[in-house]
Amino acid sequence: LSHHQSTAGDLVRALLDARRVAVIGASDDGGKASGRTLRYLLRYGYTGEVYPINPRRATVQGLDAFAGLEDVPAVPDLAVIVLPAAQVPDAVRACGRVGVPIAIVFAAGYAETGPDGARAQAQLVAVAREANVRLLGPNCVGAVAAAPKLTATFMTGLDQDRFTLVDDGVAFVSQSGAMGAFVLSMAQSTGLGLGRFVSTGNEADISFAEVVEGLVEEGSTKVILGYVEGLRDVGRMRSALQLARQRRVPVCLMKVGRTAHGAAAAQSHTGALAGRDAVYSGLFAQYGVIRATDLDHLLDVGRVFGAGRAAGGHRVTIVTISGGAGILMTDAAAELGLAVPRWDDEWAGAMAAVLPPFAAVRNPIDTTGAIATDQGLLRDATTIALKHPDTDVVLVMIGNLDREEEAVCDLLTDAAATSDKPLVVVWAGGSGRPAQILGSRGIPVYPEPLRAMRAVSALVRWSGGGRTADHADAADAAPSVGDTTASRVLDEVAAKTILRGFGIPTVAEREAHDADSAAAAATELGFPVVLKLLSTQVAHKSDQGFVRVGLTSPDGVREAARELLEAARDRRIDDRRLVVQAFVPSSTELILGMRQDPAFGPVIALGLGGVLTEVAADVQVRLPPLTAADVESMVAGLRYRALLTGVRGRTPADLEALTRTVLSFVDLVLARGAEFESFEVNPLLIDGAGQPVAVDALAVARESDVRIPAHPLTEQDLR
Amino acid sequence: LSHHQSTAGDLVRALLDARRVAVIGASDDGGKASGRTLRYLLRYGYTGEVYPINPRRATVQGLDAFAGLEDVPAVPDLAVIVLPAAQVPDAVRACGRVGVPIAIVFAAGYAETGPDGARAQAQLVAVAREANVRLLGPNCVGAVAAAPKLTATFMTGLDQDRFTLVDDGVAFVSQSGAMGAFVLSMAQSTGLGLGRFVSTGNEADISFAEVVEGLVEEGSTKVILGYVEGLRDVGRMRSALQLARQRRVPVCLMKVGRTAHGAAAAQSHTGALAGRDAVYSGLFAQYGVIRATDLDHLLDVGRVFGAGRAAGGHRVTIVTISGGAGILMTDAAAELGLAVPRWDDEWAGAMAAVLPPFAAVRNPIDTTGAIATDQGLLRDATTIALKHPDTDVVLVMIGNLDREEEAVCDLLTDAAATSDKPLVVVWAGGSGRPAQILGSRGIPVYPEPLRAMRAVSALVRWSGGGRTADHADAADAAPSVGDTTASRVLDEVAAKTILRGFGIPTVAEREAHDADSAAAAATELGFPVVLKLLSTQVAHKSDQGFVRVGLTSPDGVREAARELLEAARDRRIDDRRLVVQAFVPSSTELILGMRQDPAFGPVIALGLGGVLTEVAADVQVRLPPLTAADVESMVAGLRYRALLTGVRGRTPADLEALTRTVLSFVDLVLARGAEFESFEVNPLLIDGAGQPVAVDALAVARESDVRIPAHPLTEQDLR
Repeated sequence: LSHHQSTAGDLVRALLDARRVAVIGASDDGGKASGRTLRYLLRYGYTGEVYPINPRRATVQGLDAFAGLEDVPAVPDLAVIVLPAAQVPDAVRACGRVGVPIAIVFAAGYAETGPDGARAQAQLVAVAREANVRLLGPNCVGAVAAAPKLTATFMTGLDQDRFTLVDDGVAFVSQSGAMGAFVLSMAQSTGLGLGRFVSTGNEADISFAEVVEGLVEEGSTKVILGYVEGLRDVGRMRSALQLARQRRVPVCLMKVGRTAHGAAAAQSHTGALAGRDAVYSGLFAQYGVIRATDLDHLLDVGRVFGAGRAAGGHRVTIVTISGGAGILMTDAAAELGLAVPRWDDEWAGAMAAVLPPFAAVRNPIDTTGAIATDQGLLRDATTIALKHPDTDVVLVMIGNLDREEEAVCDLLTDAAATSDKPLVVVWAGGSGRPAQILGSRGIPVYPEPLRAMRAVSALVRWSGGGRTADHADAADAAPSVGDTTASRVLDEVAAKTILRGFGIPTVAEREAHDADSAAAAATELGFPVVLKLLSTQVAHKSDQGFVRVGLTSPDGVREAARELLEAARDRRIDDRRLVVQAFVPSSTELILGMRQDPAFGPVIALGLGGVLTEVAADVQVRLPPLTAADVESMVAGLRYRALLTGVRGRTPADLEALTRTVLSFVDLVLARGAEFESFEVNPLLIDGAGQPVAVDALAVARESDVRIPAHPLTEQDLR
Repeated sequence: LSHHQSTAGDLVRALLDARRVAVIGASDDGGKASGRTLRYLLRYGYTGEVYPINPRRATVQGLDAFAGLEDVPAVPDLAVIVLPAAQVPDAVRACGRVGVPIAIVFAAGYAETGPDGARAQAQLVAVAREANVRLLGPNCVGAVAAAPKLTATFMTGLDQDRFTLVDDGVAFVSQSGAMGAFVLSMAQSTGLGLGRFVSTGNEADISFAEVVEGLVEEGSTKVILGYVEGLRDVGRMRSALQLARQRRVPVCLMKVGRTAHGAAAAQSHTGALAGRDAVYSGLFAQYGVIRATDLDHLLDVGRVFGAGRAAGGHRVTIVTISGGAGILMTDAAAELGLAVPRWDDEWAGAMAAVLPPFAAVRNPIDTTGAIATDQGLLRDATTIALKHPDTDVVLVMIGNLDREEEAVCDLLTDAAATSDKPLVVVWAGGSGRPAQILGSRGIPVYPEPLRAMRAVSALVRWSGGGRTADHADAADAAPSVGDTTASRVLDEVAAKTILRGFGIPTVAEREAHDADSAAAAATELGFPVVLKLLSTQVAHKSDQGFVRVGLTSPDGVREAARELLEAARDRRIDDRRLVVQAFVPSSTELILGMRQDPAFGPVIALGLGGVLTEVAADVQVRLPPLTAADVESMVAGLRYRALLTGVRGRTPADLEALTRTVLSFVDLVLARGAEFESFEVNPLLIDGAGQPVAVDALAVARESDVRIPAHPLTEQDLR
């Protein structure tokens, strides 16, 4: 059977469980690149046989050396070729002659250097196929497997006195050798055993996708982490990810180069929006791959899946020794779409029974600082939290406790043993040892609460619970806005009269009481017009069908007026008048508002208005008074400021005029703000000439205030 | 002069530079809460005088005890009251009698416990005012100042063997005692010297705002970090932040409780959008406060400002030992609005002169792994990067190097000394010691590249360089879309004919060639109609004024048709026809598209269309084939999916019909995708009944393809 025809699982097994390794070109100097592999194999105590191949020496680093592969007593499972590029093809041919199935090639100078190197690489591949040898590399740093202490690598990352090889069931595949060494060392520093590491280098033969597929097939890996610069084998990657999904092996990939392709010209919107990086995101979403945003995230995900417990849902209970930590973690949970259910009386009572008097017992649980003297409280509270039926994951946040850390680790281990739900610990500060102690017992430990919550969120989403989106978004969080009490609401004409008094441009409009006066008003304003019901009893008119747009004739206005008044009568709206407004052509709708905050007093908001008000929730808030620079910073802070500064042929807004309008509104707030609970202009349109125009407004008077006449219009106002 | 009338700066100086401290109620047992303060003062080597007050003992922890404050040889600057709540008022009165200006109260059981506690707190405040004593607390963990080794606290966070008191010019003010201890310990673990720490507890007298103001006034703090649950003194906070801005003292606050107020009902949009947390964000933006998103971020910002170098602009040069790390950091820079300028020939040459052959020398700089054997390269490359005139900040990413770490730290220190630009180091893995060594030399060290870049971004924005927004947004990144080559573009009628062939609902429309045929077509379709120029030479018609909407009569259509054809002639558009379309009332516009990717083949995009296409850049991408579940996950992945699922009275989209449409489009792509470079429907409208309708479409044929007739319409198609 050709090695090229064996399965990916066989390949990975042969590579990472190799029992006999030849190091071809091994140097006696363990400090040199060509000597490191052998030195590491000896130092880390590789459990298999090692054969140094070096025709110029009798011994290498204390081992008997062999002149060639032919002289080795048994056929190696794996050859590590540490020779320069020029000597690699002969070494691969030798592998073929004796039947070594896999060779790792460290040498650089191949495709990564340009056309000459690419030719050399193609020749090397041809040699390997001819010899029936699978190649890892070239230009890779090799592979590491913790279980057999196999260190088939030359990366100096293993040259650390602290380094130990631990396998927590977490594998890591990297297209970058240097990043691989960094990540291995970061894992080591934080108590995570990346038990299997493969660096794929130039992927002349064995690809990233094949290694992932092989790890899944091989079956002993709990979670696969990867560092990706670009996939060379998309079809195989899709089938590998498909297999991972079927076998329930989580895959978390950090894909870099997000911005590298950003500048490529694109001929269609789809081209611009669905750029290379969006395709990766889509591919990942399609196959349930977790996309890591940074290296911490990658390892944090590895940690939570390495622990091997699945989440039954998205409800977390938080146990801390401080109210502040509870608030912080509740924030993080909400942001990530996790629920922090409030405990009912029965369970709160059970928790209260084990905690001191001022403890918070409804989730987040605050054990109070009493834990400093009685750590048993922590075990008891954690055990109850794990038992609580509406809890899917328990997060415990503690910190420091250097002197008691081993005892606390044991108590948490006891608690975890009472349940098969995930228990995740945040241990702020301290010696760092708890991460290693608890990590090895299947309890992942994080140094920072948001990082822990992010990992839990990945676990929950992967387990199938929780929300689909990466984060709860503002649109969902925005409460629905009901109608306001009639007596406190000013009608829009009254509100706009106040706005005009402070110099804010408003739409040309006329009040009307019946169909004929509406038609007359429309004729006076000029067509087309907009007709609205005017009533203090209806706050959001367009939602309720009380707005008619695009009326182009007196008859059209008459008919619409009759319909609106009739509909209002049917809905038992007593206060029913009409307002006819000039039509303002525009596609940019803003909101400009004020509300009273109990702590801060009046606050000013400027953002995207109209139909997108709540959906986009794109708003900037400031406290008055404001300067022009403040308003500019509000505009600059809007996500969709491009709507104002001009996009694809749209007229840009006159930002000076907009700033004047906002400052005039602030003047209104400073002069008369105390009279109102809230006062908002929505929409504040940007018209075809880029000028702001207040088209609708909603002012809610303060309950106690009597300064506002019910209907303050004068003839002059209407002019 | 009353202590209540002294400035905040005097207060902070008196508190943190106290030379004589009385510990009232000090226990002989250093393990008890009432014994810890004295134990810490002794253990950390407080440089001032300590007076234990304990009437029941002659000595306390080896020091002579005093029966009362009156017996102390000199008037203390500070009293730390470690007594239970009931005995605190008498102790405060004693402070007043002898003239102690400030007392710290640890006792809990005040306002945090309910109305009874609030009364006790009010009484305590009255006693303190009467006694002319300022109070920190109650229910606080006290204060720590590294310079005089003052540990006026009882938090067990100091009970760590590793703990040392180091002042890097970074102050930390916390409303939560426990979080304070956590953060102090996290800083300690990561080599950051939080030299001054104040826990404000219940803020019965001294508020968070007053401490911040005092730290600014006092003048020796380089950066103020804070943990905020809610401000009790908004006016003073505004003036404190104003002062910080004037004196150029950066302030970074972590405000928690973001979601706590989310559920509060709001009567207006402004109420819902400008909720409590948005007001904090606004306040922070208004005064240039950096808002920390997590505890790592808080400390990371402290680290970069503690180093004391300002950024002259937003241009960063990245020096790494691996291409992968360079890509990763370039991604992070771009996302945070920082520029990674490409070096010109002159400077690239200068860099190449010190680096080995295959090094990348144009930024990001890749020194290659040669650094493992010659670390001097790192100093040389870093020195040149700091010297480069278009570089404002230099980031160096390395890792591991345990054995050489001291030498590498020295080399980086040498490089930093050649410039006053900020030098920031990412040191992945390793022993952790470089963070302490370099941190103390004004070179901040981070364990993870994104964290470093985030800190640099905060520094750059605070220094006044860089972009205003927190991140470069998609709208800005989207390339502008030019017109496509005429010969390759199908007109929209032809494109929609293909769509219809695959069962995708399209708008009712008729092609026309002049004013009269347009009017006739409109009459046939029924008014109102939309009239567009039909031409393969104009891709984005509405941007260029070639679309007329809301035409309500044959005459209107005729006039518009004449205008459009005339405008097209003036613009030398040879291929000029017309299309008349039924008007589809809708406010939700989607885009559904396919583009060919060189690596992935055809990719499918579904997202927000119409005017928001590029501005919102809200799109989900998948690779065909797709299942219904895939389409559902695309919809669920849209940020603004609320536009589809119904928001404020809008008709929800028929998601099943939408799914069918997307799957039909995928069928088209699978059957005929190879003929097209891209094929997109934009807008795909959701009509008043929630049904999807393709209103416009743009198909671009592949250059080589000849299967598509130039004008494939038949009579049947037009029916």
